[in-house]
Amino acid sequence: MRRINAARLWDSLNQMATLGAIPGNGVCRLALSEEDRQARDLLQRWATDAGCTVRVDEMGNMFLRREGRQPQLAPVLTGSHVDSQPNGGRYDGIYGVLAGLEVLRSLNDANVETERAIEVVNWTNEEGARFAPAMLASGVFSGVFTRDEAWQREDAQGISVEQALRDTGYLGSHPARAFPIHAAYELHIEQGPILEAEGKTIGVVRGAQGQRWYQAEVVGFSAHAGTTPLPLRRDALLGFASLVQAVNQIGLHFAPDARATVGRADIEPNSPNVVPGCVRFSIEFRHPDEQVLAEMEAALLRAFAEINNGPLTTSVQRIFDYAPIEFDAHCVATVREAATALGYAQREMISGAGHDACYLSRVAPTAMIFIPCVDSISHNPAENISEAWASAGANVLLNAVVSSAMEV
Amino acid sequence: MRRINAARLWDSLNQMATLGAIPGNGVCRLALSEEDRQARDLLQRWATDAGCTVRVDEMGNMFLRREGRQPQLAPVLTGSHVDSQPNGGRYDGIYGVLAGLEVLRSLNDANVETERAIEVVNWTNEEGARFAPAMLASGVFSGVFTRDEAWQREDAQGISVEQALRDTGYLGSHPARAFPIHAAYELHIEQGPILEAEGKTIGVVRGAQGQRWYQAEVVGFSAHAGTTPLPLRRDALLGFASLVQAVNQIGLHFAPDARATVGRADIEPNSPNVVPGCVRFSIEFRHPDEQVLAEMEAALLRAFAEINNGPLTTSVQRIFDYAPIEFDAHCVATVREAATALGYAQREMISGAGHDACYLSRVAPTAMIFIPCVDSISHNPAENISEAWASAGANVLLNAVVSSAMEV
Repeated sequence: MRRINAARLWDSLNQMATLGAIPGNGVCRLALSEEDRQARDLLQRWATDAGCTVRVDEMGNMFLRREGRQPQLAPVLTGSHVDSQPNGGRYDGIYGVLAGLEVLRSLNDANVETERAIEVVNWTNEEGARFAPAMLASGVFSGVFTRDEAWQREDAQGISVEQALRDTGYLGSHPARAFPIHAAYELHIEQGPILEAEGKTIGVVRGAQGQRWYQAEVVGFSAHAGTTPLPLRRDALLGFASLVQAVNQIGLHFAPDARATVGRADIEPNSPNVVPGCVRFSIEFRHPDEQVLAEMEAALLRAFAEINNGPLTTSVQRIFDYAPIEFDAHCVATVREAATALGYAQREMISGAGHDACYLSRVAPTAMIFIPCVDSISHNPAENISEAWASAGANVLLNAVVSSAMEV
Repeated sequence: MRRINAARLWDSLNQMATLGAIPGNGVCRLALSEEDRQARDLLQRWATDAGCTVRVDEMGNMFLRREGRQPQLAPVLTGSHVDSQPNGGRYDGIYGVLAGLEVLRSLNDANVETERAIEVVNWTNEEGARFAPAMLASGVFSGVFTRDEAWQREDAQGISVEQALRDTGYLGSHPARAFPIHAAYELHIEQGPILEAEGKTIGVVRGAQGQRWYQAEVVGFSAHAGTTPLPLRRDALLGFASLVQAVNQIGLHFAPDARATVGRADIEPNSPNVVPGCVRFSIEFRHPDEQVLAEMEAALLRAFAEINNGPLTTSVQRIFDYAPIEFDAHCVATVREAATALGYAQREMISGAGHDACYLSRVAPTAMIFIPCVDSISHNPAENISEAWASAGANVLLNAVVSSAMEV
């Protein structure tokens, strides 16, 4: 099996992490910020040094191309994103991009010619931290959003995506839409606890969870905490507490794959000596099976109806519905075989988070590779991985990409 | 039995409600604001027209004195406060002041001379909405706070109480400290649902609940809602939900007098797709019996200890402890007898809210009289009472005050 140059990959990760570095070992590289521009420039220089051509499209997506023996064949694509959360870690996204670059460099070192070209992509604004929503540019590429609606998205300062693309010099001329891709791989840190908890090095990601998001409300009546006897109260917080537990019970009922979360709640009036009159809160369910999501939703509606029978009124509204994603069976098998041949402890898994690969899978055969991260910490400067994990993931990526790039 | 002039009282209430009027029939008369100054000026004019002398002390407390036959005897005091919540109702506080004024006017009409002087007081900054804490000036009067610490309290704009007293012209020269008072009565709307629910017109208030306030925290670990399986979560919101229910159970266990409330909670990071890592929240218990409050606290600590055994850590700290207040038995009896003689449906009760009378009872024999309010709404423009309730309360006040003012 081929192997990448682990020291060079680690060194590139460290060099890149100096751009937008923030205290605590993290980075702040908001999409199309000055720090993002510097990181893009460095990536472009490294790619050019490695003999690649670089294409930029109208969404600022960068494609670093290592030519194949048969340029007319659809290329193999790999990559992720350079941008970060405002208080982000040094591996989320950029690891997949630099591991892709390391694949190209390693192939150069070994003088390997592939049948198909290999392209490493940097998708613009994956995080959605500066411009909502997340995965904006891979979404345009995959036909989920139009270029114009993406261009019009504005940051908190009112700067549009189009303006930011112009300002950074990354408004490319190539159309931001899918071209024929033979196979696509995205390597990423898990951002969850499973691989580390089970002592596995490689996650073979065969799909992504479907998600249903809800906005909910329990309405009672605000009352003076001192003057209002308990039997005469309509305490919205009590209804909320029951529903938090109901949501958790629903998640447990559909274990182990279900996720059920109340992450946000806003209480009115939120004053120590006033009985809460209203609680508005978020609920989200995730599961790889659409049918199970429907059952979870039915259970949720029953729990709400039960609360609605008392002195409280409730409402719950589904606000998003992302169908589960199944990655391409052949790409998944290619990843599994590479991990097996390399002798890494592996497991199949479902991505709980959204990734550019989720959109990309609409227009190209796609799979993902996960490596563990320490204590499942991500979107935080404390995000960390070991050098051994980093090289293991890149080795799997190298062999999967080469395998696909040799297919004719 | 003597009776006040119901139409005049109602008319005065309506006139006063034009000062600081806000949409929805309410008032905004923050302590020592321009609106409060106008209301004070009007009160002073009405008192002067009624033949009273007006004294203002260093805290801006106003004493409208109708002289008695024996000026050397300690006066009978009644009154409440002119200030309001920012989004307040037109009866909270001001009803007790204007009913006191109506008592004086009615005695004038009937040419009644009392043995003791009667003084109607307007306590500065009862609400605590502009300057924290509430009942600031009755607190100084009763020796709970020093004048200087009260003067230094600042509003959100950094204006001190002393400055605001100067600006409004209500920085008086009389010392703000207790003088001999024979008996004191405060008439107030209930701000709770009990009288209305039971069809009673008069609440004979024999004390005020003790209060214990707590600041609590449940700490878990923030995690990605998509990538973190339920068994690996440390969801602070689940611990919080259990504790909300435990607090309510404790309140129900010590029914009917106990109040147990979680009114405020702040979740971190409060984002729909992040498992909550921390919830900070308030708890307050109220009960007329100190011993029961201690038992409620013990039950609370047990509930917290239970949660602390899992993947969550908790903390709870008592931040206030107000002892229960028992009003003067003779004053309470005087109120009861007046209500009985007038033929009003009455009940004894405990004030769930704090009032100036609670502090005043430290330095003078004190009792309170409650009338119902519609739907227990208070601190809200929709606060409402009937004209019949208003005159009933003032009639009880008149007869109780006169009864005490005839005692030599």
